[in-house]
Amino acid sequence: MSNVPGLQLNGAKLLQQIKTLGDIGVDLTQGGRTRIALSDAEKAGRDQVVAWMRELELDIQVDRIGNIFGSLRCASDTGHERPFMMGSHIDTVTNAGALDGCYGVLAGLAVQRAYREAGVLPPRTITVGAFTNEEGVRYQPDMMGSLVYAGGMSVEDALKTVGTDGSRLGDELARIGYAGELVPGAMVPHEYLELHIEQGPILEAENTLIGVVENLQGISWQQVTVKGNANHAGTTPTRLRQDAGYVACAIATELRQLAKSSGTTLATIGCMTFEPNVINVIPRRASFTVDLRDPDESKLLKAEQQLAARLAEIAEEEGVSIETEQLVRFQPVTFDPSLANAIEDSARRFGFSHRRMTSGAGHDAQMIARIAPAAMIFVPSRGGISHNPREHTDDDQLLNGAQVLLDVVQRRLNTPL
Amino acid sequence: MSNVPGLQLNGAKLLQQIKTLGDIGVDLTQGGRTRIALSDAEKAGRDQVVAWMRELELDIQVDRIGNIFGSLRCASDTGHERPFMMGSHIDTVTNAGALDGCYGVLAGLAVQRAYREAGVLPPRTITVGAFTNEEGVRYQPDMMGSLVYAGGMSVEDALKTVGTDGSRLGDELARIGYAGELVPGAMVPHEYLELHIEQGPILEAENTLIGVVENLQGISWQQVTVKGNANHAGTTPTRLRQDAGYVACAIATELRQLAKSSGTTLATIGCMTFEPNVINVIPRRASFTVDLRDPDESKLLKAEQQLAARLAEIAEEEGVSIETEQLVRFQPVTFDPSLANAIEDSARRFGFSHRRMTSGAGHDAQMIARIAPAAMIFVPSRGGISHNPREHTDDDQLLNGAQVLLDVVQRRLNTPL
Repeated sequence: MSNVPGLQLNGAKLLQQIKTLGDIGVDLTQGGRTRIALSDAEKAGRDQVVAWMRELELDIQVDRIGNIFGSLRCASDTGHERPFMMGSHIDTVTNAGALDGCYGVLAGLAVQRAYREAGVLPPRTITVGAFTNEEGVRYQPDMMGSLVYAGGMSVEDALKTVGTDGSRLGDELARIGYAGELVPGAMVPHEYLELHIEQGPILEAENTLIGVVENLQGISWQQVTVKGNANHAGTTPTRLRQDAGYVACAIATELRQLAKSSGTTLATIGCMTFEPNVINVIPRRASFTVDLRDPDESKLLKAEQQLAARLAEIAEEEGVSIETEQLVRFQPVTFDPSLANAIEDSARRFGFSHRRMTSGAGHDAQMIARIAPAAMIFVPSRGGISHNPREHTDDDQLLNGAQVLLDVVQRRLNTPL
Repeated sequence: MSNVPGLQLNGAKLLQQIKTLGDIGVDLTQGGRTRIALSDAEKAGRDQVVAWMRELELDIQVDRIGNIFGSLRCASDTGHERPFMMGSHIDTVTNAGALDGCYGVLAGLAVQRAYREAGVLPPRTITVGAFTNEEGVRYQPDMMGSLVYAGGMSVEDALKTVGTDGSRLGDELARIGYAGELVPGAMVPHEYLELHIEQGPILEAENTLIGVVENLQGISWQQVTVKGNANHAGTTPTRLRQDAGYVACAIATELRQLAKSSGTTLATIGCMTFEPNVINVIPRRASFTVDLRDPDESKLLKAEQQLAARLAEIAEEEGVSIETEQLVRFQPVTFDPSLANAIEDSARRFGFSHRRMTSGAGHDAQMIARIAPAAMIFVPSRGGISHNPREHTDDDQLLNGAQVLLDVVQRRLNTPL
C-alpha cells in the first residue's frame, strides 16, 4: 500500500476496535454477541462508540430517533455544511457476528483518525453515522433509523413502535439515554458511503476482494395464510381434500421455478407452520412467508403478480381460502454511478480484484440514497455466512476495504496531500 | 324394524351410555373430552364401563396390557370356549368426540343387553373387549392393546413403553388399577366384529347408511429430515442454495401428484417444521412426516419406493442430506368375506342403503384379524370429522348400526328366536 500516497490507515487500531465492540454483549454459551436495538447491551455498545468519537474529538450529535453522528468538521464549517457521510449500524441480531454494521461504523472512524493522525483537517466535514435499529429484530421495520433520517417514516410513528416484547421504542430510547434533540435529516449528506461485509457468497466464490455495489435489490416480504379443512389422513379421498399444507408447499415449489426462470429474482420461503401439525391430520392451516427480491422493479412486480395470480388459482382448485399481508416492500435502489466509479478506480489503483455487484441484503445506504448520492463497498464473507457467530472476513480483507474507503473519501474531498 | 324378528335393541339405553361416557373427561373450555390412555380420566371411563358390565352380570377379565373383557357366557362355556367378540376402545385423543371407539364398545354391551332383556343365553359366549391405548397419543404405537392381544408385540415390551410425558406404561397401568392377570390372546375369538363411525366423508357424501368394511388400508408413516445450509435470502444465488425447506415442499407437492396418479394411494404431509424459521434465512433444516396408505400392499410398496428414489435424487440436486425414519408400517388387511357378506345381508334386510368400503383409518379389528375372522361395520360421520369435538353421527344412524350389529351376531350364532 506504500505506493499509494496520502493518508495512512491505522489498521491495527481498526481491528482492535472491531474486537472490543464485538466483545460487548458476547454470549459465552451460544456464541457470538447479542446487542438488540435499545437493549442494555446495545447501550453499552453505543457508549463505547461515543467514547471513541470523543477520543477523536468529534462533534457528537444524537437525533430524535437515536442515530449517533460524529463529525470531524472542516475549517469553514460552522455546523451547517453538508458533510461527506460514512456509516452503518451497531445493533445486532441474536448471536450475531462482530462485523455486520460495526465494520462500516468503525472504518468510518478510521478514516477520521487518518486525518487526525496526519494532523490535517478535511476540506469538507466528514461525519460518521451509527443508525438506530437496522436489524429490526425487536422493532419493525428494520433500517428504521436511516428510514426516519431520510424522511420515509415520521419520528413520531417510529417512537410509538411497539416491540416484540411489548415495549415502546420511544420509552426504551429515553431509558438508555439516546433520545437526542437533533431533527432527523436536518444534516443532509453531500455524499454517503457505506463499507460492509457482503453477507453473501459471491466475492469469496469468485476470489474477489472488493465489491463495487452499484445497486440494491428491491425487497417484497409477504405473510401468506392458507385456511383449509382438517380431516383424517386415512379416510379423506384426495379429491375431497382442502389441504392447507399442500397448497403452501405447492406455492413454495413453484416460487423456486419462478426464480430459476427469471434469472435475477430470488424467492425464499423462510418460515412455514402447519396446524394442527399432526401426522395423520390434513393441515387445516398453513402459514408461510415469501421473500422476493430483484434489482429490477418491473421484474419484482411481475413476480408479485405471478404469485398473487397463482394463489388465487390454487385457492379455487383446492377449495381453500388464502390471505396475504405485505410485511415489507422496498423498491430497488440504484446507487450513484460517480461514487461507484470512484470505488472501482480506487480498487484498481490498489490492485485489488473487484467486481460490480448488486446488494442482496438491505442496508442503511438504501435509505440515505433517497436524500444523497450514495454507494457501498463490499468485502468477502466466508461461506456467505452472516447473522451467525461464524460470520468471518479475514483481517487483511477488512483492511483492504477500509483502505479503499479512505482512498475514495480523500479523493472525493480533493484532500491536498 | 318391527318386521325383523328377534332380539330387541334398547336404543335409548345405548344413546344414554354414549352420552354418560362422553361426559367423562369433558373439557369445558376447549370442547370435547380428553381421556388419554391410562390417565385419571381414562381410568374413570374404564370404571364406568366395568360398572355397566357388572349391571349385565358379565364375567369380567382384565389382561396384562389392561384390555378389559366382559363375557356373557353360553350355558356350555366353562371359561374355555372361543367367544364371538365385539369391541373397540374407550381411550381418546385430546378434545375428542364422544363416538370414536366408545360407540363400538357400548354397542357390544347393547347386544349383550338384548340377550339379558330377552332372558335368553346365547348359543356361544359373547365377549365385549375394550382395548388399551388405541389412539397412541401418549404411548406409541397406537392400537397397542389389540396388537399385544394378537401377538404382534410382547407384553413385556409394551409395559416398558415410555410415554411422551416420560412415564412408563406399566407403571401407569398399575397406578390406575388395570394391570390384570389374563395372558393377552389366551382367549382367541371365534369371530370378531367392530362397529365404528367412518371418520371419513364417503358414507355421508353418498347418503349411505351402512358401510360394509371389507378391507383396511396398509399404512406407512415416515419421518423425513432434510439438512441443508442456512444462508441469507437476499445474497445467496438460487444455484448456490441448499434449501432444506424447498426440498421438503417439493417432496410434499410431488406426493400429491403420486396420490392423484395412483388413484388409490393416499399421501398426507401432516407435520412440517423449518429451522431457523426466519423470513430472510434459507432453512437449514426441514422436518416433515409422510403418511402413505393403500389397500393394496404392492401399490403401497411402490409409493414408498418412489418416495425413496425421489428423496435420493433431490438430495443430490440440491446438495442436502436427507434421513428417513419409519415410524409405523402396517400391511393392508383383508377382512373375512363371510362376515362382510353377513353385514351386507343384514343391511339389505333392514332396507338400509349400504356399500362395500375400505377402512382408511386403523382400528383394533385389523389386529384381531391376525388371529380370528374379523370385519367392521361403519356408520356415517358428519363432514367426515373425527378426533374433534365436532365429531357427529345422528342418533338414528347410530341405532341403525347397532341394529345391524345385533342382527349379524344373532344370525352368526344361530340364536333360536
